[in-house]
Amino acid sequence: MPRYAFLIEYDGGPFSGWQRQEDRPSVQAAVEAALGRLEPGPHGIAAAGRTDAGVHATGQVAHADLARDWVPRRLVEALNFHLRPAPVAILACAAVTEDFHARFSARTRAYTYRFLCRRPHAVLDRGRVWRVGRALDIDAMRAAAAHLVGRHDFTTFRASICQAKSPVRTVDAISFEELPCPGGTEIRMNVQARSFLHNQVRSFAGTLERVGAGAWPPARVAEALAARDRAACGPVAPPEGLCLTAVGYDPDPFAAGATG
Amino acid sequence: MPRYAFLIEYDGGPFSGWQRQEDRPSVQAAVEAALGRLEPGPHGIAAAGRTDAGVHATGQVAHADLARDWVPRRLVEALNFHLRPAPVAILACAAVTEDFHARFSARTRAYTYRFLCRRPHAVLDRGRVWRVGRALDIDAMRAAAAHLVGRHDFTTFRASICQAKSPVRTVDAISFEELPCPGGTEIRMNVQARSFLHNQVRSFAGTLERVGAGAWPPARVAEALAARDRAACGPVAPPEGLCLTAVGYDPDPFAAGATG
Repeated sequence: MPRYAFLIEYDGGPFSGWQRQEDRPSVQAAVEAALGRLEPGPHGIAAAGRTDAGVHATGQVAHADLARDWVPRRLVEALNFHLRPAPVAILACAAVTEDFHARFSARTRAYTYRFLCRRPHAVLDRGRVWRVGRALDIDAMRAAAAHLVGRHDFTTFRASICQAKSPVRTVDAISFEELPCPGGTEIRMNVQARSFLHNQVRSFAGTLERVGAGAWPPARVAEALAARDRAACGPVAPPEGLCLTAVGYDPDPFAAGATG
Repeated sequence: MPRYAFLIEYDGGPFSGWQRQEDRPSVQAAVEAALGRLEPGPHGIAAAGRTDAGVHATGQVAHADLARDWVPRRLVEALNFHLRPAPVAILACAAVTEDFHARFSARTRAYTYRFLCRRPHAVLDRGRVWRVGRALDIDAMRAAAAHLVGRHDFTTFRASICQAKSPVRTVDAISFEELPCPGGTEIRMNVQARSFLHNQVRSFAGTLERVGAGAWPPARVAEALAARDRAACGPVAPPEGLCLTAVGYDPDPFAAGATG
């Protein structure tokens, strides 16, 4: 059976997350249903990142095995036809070898968290940002985030329900951008790692917001990390500010440009 | 009665436009209703740009006369409290003199039109962009737009129902930006003039899309302008790609920073 990799964008708002669940809408079920309109199922697709309810993606990657040989461009067209009007789109597709696995072959995952720093509620970016209601000190956030880069035991920054065997992960980089926006500024936090623990990025975001707001000195983040204690974490930031932006593979399955 | 100027952001999607209409939701009616929660009405507010149904704003300006003296910051807070959850937010407020009129004092108006250049449907930017489904030749669009800059009779580029006395306007500048976006590129067209005719920017956008797509040579835009004939215009681009981004005054009523 030929295997295909898909690059997927979705609005997490209406979904209970990536992963299929009984009686609740999921992105996985939406894509599998679209595949089912092309070939009899059931279809099982695996994704690089099992995003939580409300979390968005512009660069999710998943793979599926299909019975027929498809021209990738036509497969994208057909899937998007059946996905509409759901807020899920296949951005690209590529035929891959059997040893490609969207989750296990992934070398890096990149997330962006968006903080809307203004008093008025979000309007045009509603559901895409966390409106924090005040200016944040980006330099303090950068100083605090530096403690989180590298190989650490991230017990403090993972959900109590996290099922990963080990709490040790290596965070490659955390960078921040500050952008003007109507009525205030927006801060974007970009985080990259080979893999993440459950709620790790939102735990970083909520904790670093406390630093940006001046409620926590940056050094407290180092202490929280060293504590290896979930209770030492700051608040978990809401899902709507988070987006899975890229998953890295070597080689990049989409490099040949077999896109939609 | 003290007069206040308001800087307003809204999502035009759910509204029949800025202007109050019988039995249809409008941004004006939403803001007037919020004012009515603060002081007995009726309230009449005037805006710089009477945007059409579906057109967004990040920099609309309006003014209103109120009975009480308000601290601008508190007025913003109170109005936003009453506006929520409507996708309308007051970004700033300033006390202005009686000779300030949001519409008649405006020196410049700036709009941005967003073209999403990719085959897959819009997801995270749904309702904020015109998905044109193909790459556009930005250099050709720039060459064509150059014919539209300056003082001209824009009969070709105004709606047949436009009520302006004269079809002559002066377009100060049209600029383009190309940005990478998931699965393609986005082109943003920024247009500035003292004032615009009805549907002028959307008529520009739809006509210049034809140029970008290669269906029209740039010189045909000059011919269309010279024809002074609505029938010579290209298609009118859909409202969801359009946003009123700024209105300029001298002096800027919001310069003192009395913001929300």
